[in-house]
Amino acid sequence: MSGHLAVIGLGPGDARTLTPEAQAALAGAEALYGYGGYLDRVPMRESQSRHASDNRQEGSRAAAALAHAAAGAKVAIVSGGDPGVFAMAAAVCEAIAGGPPAWRCLDITVVPGVTAMLAVAARVGAPLGHDFCVLSLSDNLKPWELIERRLDAAARAGFAIALYNPISRARPWQLGKAFDRLRGLLPPATPVVFGRAVGRADERVTVTTLAAADAASADMATLLIVGSRATHVIERPGRSPLVYTSRSAPGRDEGTPA
Amino acid sequence: MSGHLAVIGLGPGDARTLTPEAQAALAGAEALYGYGGYLDRVPMRESQSRHASDNRQEGSRAAAALAHAAAGAKVAIVSGGDPGVFAMAAAVCEAIAGGPPAWRCLDITVVPGVTAMLAVAARVGAPLGHDFCVLSLSDNLKPWELIERRLDAAARAGFAIALYNPISRARPWQLGKAFDRLRGLLPPATPVVFGRAVGRADERVTVTTLAAADAASADMATLLIVGSRATHVIERPGRSPLVYTSRSAPGRDEGTPA
Repeated sequence: MSGHLAVIGLGPGDARTLTPEAQAALAGAEALYGYGGYLDRVPMRESQSRHASDNRQEGSRAAAALAHAAAGAKVAIVSGGDPGVFAMAAAVCEAIAGGPPAWRCLDITVVPGVTAMLAVAARVGAPLGHDFCVLSLSDNLKPWELIERRLDAAARAGFAIALYNPISRARPWQLGKAFDRLRGLLPPATPVVFGRAVGRADERVTVTTLAAADAASADMATLLIVGSRATHVIERPGRSPLVYTSRSAPGRDEGTPA
Repeated sequence: MSGHLAVIGLGPGDARTLTPEAQAALAGAEALYGYGGYLDRVPMRESQSRHASDNRQEGSRAAAALAHAAAGAKVAIVSGGDPGVFAMAAAVCEAIAGGPPAWRCLDITVVPGVTAMLAVAARVGAPLGHDFCVLSLSDNLKPWELIERRLDAAARAGFAIALYNPISRARPWQLGKAFDRLRGLLPPATPVVFGRAVGRADERVTVTTLAAADAASADMATLLIVGSRATHVIERPGRSPLVYTSRSAPGRDEGTPA
């Protein structure tokens, strides 16, 4: 079978964060699939067909791209950030697992990219510089109780926490509830970073505390980082503060609630 | 103060994973600091001075680079992968926090890169496609008991787990003990990925199970991914298997030990 499917990470922002490997994979594709907002970031090529779909149609998009590749074409699916973190690579694997046997014979490549949490962390210093957890706040595919249990486990064990999919029109209360939950387990001064659209024209990055964190400051394009007890802020004259998580464990028991 | 320090992520492998942003930051530096093995990946420029240091001298390297930048130079520190994940960005922040006040006036930028876990995950599918934890197995700066507590918390709460710094000559037993610990909490068939030197000439990626995982298969250049109960393997005729973590939570209680 000659078909090929590449699942390509575009990185968080403009072309400056696109790896040469991703660039080459994009150039080699005959057909591009993806959420419209991500496809818009890829320069048009006359020889390529484009298949835009809605943000939430990962499963059907994966199936359509696989079917197209199985017909012998060189197909690419684009993802923002890295395709392996809450993005299209898992949707493609799920589609293969549940799809026709021929899809298992396809040549599949995943091209990694800079995922949002790395871009946001870089903007403020090194809040993910030591052990951390990465959690989606979307309860579309998992129960909210499981999300709460994971938040508790992460905070109690002293992980910093990166939160993907913090809020959407269909999920308006989840982030506020997550903050409330974490306030019961971490000190009020715990640093919280809101990183919106990093690397794009409308980028906005703010550093606050868990006590002051307001869910209304986040939108669909926001990635949050909640520190651990080892996360510190360095104030700087005339510059934005640095936020980092120390490579050394704090002297106190990190499991003790605040 | 005119000095500038850039902390630059080189990505996991060759130039194909270096972002244009990192490329530009490297080109603009007057002095490059870093572990020798990482500096060797950057093409020589006559106008640049090079300052190689040993792998474990992060603190003194950060201080030397900051002092150099404070003298007015454009300085860069290079990291493999992403500088914000168990790498130089946190070391630089720590040095600033404990250093002379002038260092707080410096222009500091962190340039993100593709970190090892994303590159390893991409090679096998999407094992980090849902909630996961990222943990260093090095007990140089934190007690082993804390590492065990974090492994337990991550496995019990249903996170996949990416393990950095799994083993070294000075830390020969930690990975084996971590496997033992996880075997008490996760099913024997839990997928485990060993990803060594991904993107480089001596790349080696293998997929096994938690029951069969052998710590002796890892070295300093290896990144490990241990799945959760939602991590599955798709066998493929004539191709390496795909490993992915489902976006949906499994129907069973993930907190129950195997």
